[in-house]
Amino acid sequence: MTFPTPLTGVVPPVCTPLTPDREVDVPSLLRLVDHLTDAGVHGLFVLGSSSEAAFLTDRQRRLVVEAVVGHAGGRLPVLAGVIDMTTPRVLDHVRQVTAAGADAVVATAPFYARTHPAEIARHYRLLAAASPVPVIAYDIPASVNTKLPADVVLDLAAEGVLAGLKDSSGDLAGFREVVTGARDRSDVRGFSALTGSELLVDAALAMGADGAVPGLANVDPHGYVRLDALCRAGDRERARLEQERLCALFGMVCVGDTGRMGGSSSALGAFKAALHLRGVIDCPVTAEPQVPLSAHEVERVGKFLAGAGLL
Amino acid sequence: MTFPTPLTGVVPPVCTPLTPDREVDVPSLLRLVDHLTDAGVHGLFVLGSSSEAAFLTDRQRRLVVEAVVGHAGGRLPVLAGVIDMTTPRVLDHVRQVTAAGADAVVATAPFYARTHPAEIARHYRLLAAASPVPVIAYDIPASVNTKLPADVVLDLAAEGVLAGLKDSSGDLAGFREVVTGARDRSDVRGFSALTGSELLVDAALAMGADGAVPGLANVDPHGYVRLDALCRAGDRERARLEQERLCALFGMVCVGDTGRMGGSSSALGAFKAALHLRGVIDCPVTAEPQVPLSAHEVERVGKFLAGAGLL
Amino acid sequence: MTFPTPLTGVVPPVCTPLTPDREVDVPSLLRLVDHLTDAGVHGLFVLGSSSEAAFLTDRQRRLVVEAVVGHAGGRLPVLAGVIDMTTPRVLDHVRQVTAAGADAVVATAPFYARTHPAEIARHYRLLAAASPVPVIAYDIPASVNTKLPADVVLDLAAEGVLAGLKDSSGDLAGFREVVTGARDRSDVRGFSALTGSELLVDAALAMGADGAVPGLANVDPHGYVRLDALCRAGDRERARLEQERLCALFGMVCVGDTGRMGGSSSALGAFKAALHLRGVIDCPVTAEPQVPLSAHEVERVGKFLAGAGLL
Amino acid sequence: MTFPTPLTGVVPPVCTPLTPDREVDVPSLLRLVDHLTDAGVHGLFVLGSSSEAAFLTDRQRRLVVEAVVGHAGGRLPVLAGVIDMTTPRVLDHVRQVTAAGADAVVATAPFYARTHPAEIARHYRLLAAASPVPVIAYDIPASVNTKLPADVVLDLAAEGVLAGLKDSSGDLAGFREVVTGARDRSDVRGFSALTGSELLVDAALAMGADGAVPGLANVDPHGYVRLDALCRAGDRERARLEQERLCALFGMVCVGDTGRMGGSSSALGAFKAALHLRGVIDCPVTAEPQVPLSAHEVERVGKFLAGAGLL
Repeated sequence: MTFPTPLTGVVPPVCTPLTPDREVDVPSLLRLVDHLTDAGVHGLFVLGSSSEAAFLTDRQRRLVVEAVVGHAGGRLPVLAGVIDMTTPRVLDHVRQVTAAGADAVVATAPFYARTHPAEIARHYRLLAAASPVPVIAYDIPASVNTKLPADVVLDLAAEGVLAGLKDSSGDLAGFREVVTGARDRSDVRGFSALTGSELLVDAALAMGADGAVPGLANVDPHGYVRLDALCRAGDRERARLEQERLCALFGMVCVGDTGRMGGSSSALGAFKAALHLRGVIDCPVTAEPQVPLSAHEVERVGKFLAGAGLL
Repeated sequence: MTFPTPLTGVVPPVCTPLTPDREVDVPSLLRLVDHLTDAGVHGLFVLGSSSEAAFLTDRQRRLVVEAVVGHAGGRLPVLAGVIDMTTPRVLDHVRQVTAAGADAVVATAPFYARTHPAEIARHYRLLAAASPVPVIAYDIPASVNTKLPADVVLDLAAEGVLAGLKDSSGDLAGFREVVTGARDRSDVRGFSALTGSELLVDAALAMGADGAVPGLANVDPHGYVRLDALCRAGDRERARLEQERLCALFGMVCVGDTGRMGGSSSALGAFKAALHLRGVIDCPVTAEPQVPLSAHEVERVGKFLAGAGLL
Repeated sequence: MTFPTPLTGVVPPVCTPLTPDREVDVPSLLRLVDHLTDAGVHGLFVLGSSSEAAFLTDRQRRLVVEAVVGHAGGRLPVLAGVIDMTTPRVLDHVRQVTAAGADAVVATAPFYARTHPAEIARHYRLLAAASPVPVIAYDIPASVNTKLPADVVLDLAAEGVLAGLKDSSGDLAGFREVVTGARDRSDVRGFSALTGSELLVDAALAMGADGAVPGLANVDPHGYVRLDALCRAGDRERARLEQERLCALFGMVCVGDTGRMGGSSSALGAFKAALHLRGVIDCPVTAEPQVPLSAHEVERVGKFLAGAGLL
Repeated sequence: MTFPTPLTGVVPPVCTPLTPDREVDVPSLLRLVDHLTDAGVHGLFVLGSSSEAAFLTDRQRRLVVEAVVGHAGGRLPVLAGVIDMTTPRVLDHVRQVTAAGADAVVATAPFYARTHPAEIARHYRLLAAASPVPVIAYDIPASVNTKLPADVVLDLAAEGVLAGLKDSSGDLAGFREVVTGARDRSDVRGFSALTGSELLVDAALAMGADGAVPGLANVDPHGYVRLDALCRAGDRERARLEQERLCALFGMVCVGDTGRMGGSSSALGAFKAALHLRGVIDCPVTAEPQVPLSAHEVERVGKFLAGAGLL
């Protein structure tokens, strides 16, 4: 389908359910897609960080895009992550996901190699030149150790290289600069400014952001769709209350014992445990080498769900 | 061939020459391998950071290992990097490079996802369980944002999971802890402690390190082989002088204008420019999105070569 | 005066005007205080980061507090920074600024020494035990390399140790956790949650923050007072427009050439140049070793003022 | 006394013994000085990081310098730290410690404010212009978040601004650049290149460093004096063995439970516990807000002493 300019609303980064032996669980994945589309989300982002893209093999990535595009493609836009270290490797992913039908690709700055702003711009220009679909920049310094500068993003938008930004930097002031720049600069048109935050969606939309890509929307898509609608209706107080309910629910990402596992094991483990407890997916396992949650930690996830009225 | 326990001496991380359109230049690669083996190096490490592994596609990586193993395999050990984000993706590379004949695999800690020491240990255990050849840990915090703790490395060595360490951390005190631990712990045997530094090889060997994996050995393999021999002969003063000559030569990595490019473009660009000036490879181009050196910067590389008596 | 519980509104971190030979310029300082109070600010914060407290000697710090308290004390609350490395040194500053009449002290986590959360809590408990006035925590990881965890802040608030927080972390999601926690926890009362951001005041107040401590309020106190009033009146759209005008004005902090100076020289130099251009202070000089702005850079500050309707 | 050019040998950063109520324990301090001088150290460095200078009030700092200069001054050089955030504050310390008789001052780059290389150079030039005694640069990025670039250090040495460097950066390759530059540049004379490492003294001296400033020399000054003598005699193998014994002893810095305290509490607590166990100082207490070692942790310090033959 034609990619909306801009893309607005809630675009969950779709979790990738796995079987106990860590293969992609396609039936669970499609049930998850239905769970999201039934709630009224406005797009789907596969192969993002919350999708464990960094943990999926090339074969598994292809399977995910094909399955989701086959199931939901045409009904709503499907964005696909092309997360890899540098331009030549990312270009291989661009070929794969667009062959499988993705409506846009989402690419980080290069990583592993430390990268200069001039090299980042060159990277995105090469991707845009080769991609048959729009390129969205993915700003995630916690993973790639580079913050995309607002002026680089806006200049690439003006050049027609970037069609949007998913901002997972945690730096709302920097994101605001992109939002207002994309709105006010006459050389930028149709740019989609999307926040990756779970916790500041009301604030980002109030500033003029176009939409949100919150990992927690896997667990509670209705909440984020409601939040988005309240913001668009200008009902700021009820939006704040909905956002605060979702902030409390997000506390689940810290259930994992930090002496035993890292933040990814805890957060992605909690999202999957919640989807399992809610009956959406068959198995809560996460990819290697992530450490599984204990029974007690899963129980705490259940309490977060109960506290948010989801169980 | 059987992997030496320990591997000692000079093991250059072999640069990957590219053609002007950025395909692997196999004839140049084989000339580079001859340049290194003729100088008397003790092993070859392909697909490391100096090899631009992060920039090579899977197809290109396979081509490199096949070419080098086909040319030099059996004569001296060929180690192959398996650089990727997480266990499932690294396992795919392990399959590829061992099918192509690599004698050992060299693996970093997981990256992109922030990773806990328990997850790092789990990662290496899974790699070792699946790999038909020894696993060497690659400690490179500048790229992966995690420092491998000395006790984790030594415990995994004692378990039989790790056969060695390439230390590119810059933390010589931490490396010393691994070197003396591997020597003194009765439960660790045949472990190869290799420094990745260009600048501290004399110091590392004096502490008891087994060998060195210096990127600059592409440019001056004779120098590093001489340095290694002087250290083993106990001729510390001449070793220091040789090391200082190599330290001066290493200054070439800073020729690139920091306003225009990052450190990788400058350092790998300088190594390749030097190999081109010395007549070893046909074309000095680096992979995208690295920025090429200017003519003036290449001229400065030439002056470093002249200063070290290499032109 | 009794410290308000909570303190609300605009509390500028008051710049410290210097003479050409870098002594405190008391007449200019008092004119600046009048400039702020005439605009209707709700409190004054002396000896903060924007006050160049890190650059002032103990004698100069004392002089600043005495002058400002003597001039404005009793009319509105005067908060004083007690910025130093560790508890014993901070306690000396607490004695000095409270002897000079400060109504509250504002203290960072320890720095120089790397510090554990348990040590941070111990630090604040010792300060609160010794201080005759309320203690406000100052979260500024860019300077002290530690982020104050929200739960540590809230627990110390519940204990009666902390009376408030000035959040200069840039992490609005973390600040939101303190804001909602301070509102919802029954064991926390009268806590002042203040944002140190220039750029997100509308968003912070919408979340329930009590007030703002923006360095740019030195330059445009009327703007921030207006912004605060619009937020309290629930006029979100006009608040956003006022905030966006102030965001554009804040662009002045980047006038300094990054090849020639650091961020502090540029930002504090711009604030002081603006105050000088607006006729509030006699001399725009900043403390050593900061690098002065060039004539051309000062001219650019003037353009920012003109663009915001302030010249 | 005239400051040696260069200063060579072992220059312990003298711990500051405290009484149970955290006053400077002068009798213990003088016993510690005797313990060091009797072992044959070549200089004393007071008010460094291992001296808890960051935790001492100005009054306490003055007392320390006066006591040590009064006791040992004239017999061997006394260097004094002037650790504070910026130039004006450091200048106040320069006045104090030189009035008290220090033979040289040791100054870090500015901290708290993020600082540009141009500002660092300006800082040292202003210090040197005002100081009646030589200025030594103190490179300690873990505390001040800036690495002193080798070329900045060497250029300031050539200008006559810096008389030496204490390198506590952990970056031995960068230190080597200063060591060889100071030796080879014709415009640099009499420069003292001192390593602050406990673990790499043999390697640093082998490269040409002039001396060492190891915190652990408080605990085992005889060991470091022996190590220095072996290095100067060219007895590299016995030097390595002595260094390895000291590396094992240094393990004591990790006795503290990281769930309960930070690295400073653990390391300085261990040094003081060791000095107490060895009968040198009366009380092992560290300054606030550091967390004391438990009885069990102190017992482990004792085992390290026993293992090194010191109990």
